[in-house]
Amino acid sequence: MFEVKIYVSLKKGVADPQGATIKGALEALGYGGIEDVRMGKYIQIKINSSSKQDAEKKIKEMCEKLLVNPVIERYSYEISLPDRSP
Amino acid sequence: MFEVKIYVSLKKGVADPQGATIKGALEALGYGGIEDVRMGKYIQIKINSSSKQDAEKKIKEMCEKLLVNPVIERYSYEISLPDRSP
Repeated sequence: MFEVKIYVSLKKGVADPQGATIKGALEALGYGGIEDVRMGKYIQIKINSSSKQDAEKKIKEMCEKLLVNPVIERYSYEISLPDRSP
Repeated sequence: MFEVKIYVSLKKGVADPQGATIKGALEALGYGGIEDVRMGKYIQIKINSSSKQDAEKKIKEMCEKLLVNPVIERYSYEISLPDRSP
């Protein structure tokens, strides 16, 4: 079994009202020096697969078909074997 | 300026309906072998700070005061200097 961490973030230039709201809230709490806040998604998937290559292929497909909107979002991922065996 | 990446995920045992919905959708698309899907937040913050230690202190506070609900969520973070100077 593989543990996959997928990080999805908005592309540069795409408006991020949620990030702007958080920035405003942090400033209202007294935190200065914040240049930018961007909000994204962090998806953890546990998947059974015959090999890391196969898992990677599936994860890329899943991202492109369902998890990520390629028009406005970009993604990266990490695939690892968990510490303990399944 | 420091670039901070914050990963927020639901604690083990906390129900994750969004993750369950994604798991169902991936299975409906024909992907087998998925054991678990957990949905979290990925927050990127650019912050001006005198030192990495100071930035870290602020980020921890921000997480505990605003960004993370410690009852149901856990978080981790990475702080780095961006490649190019500000």
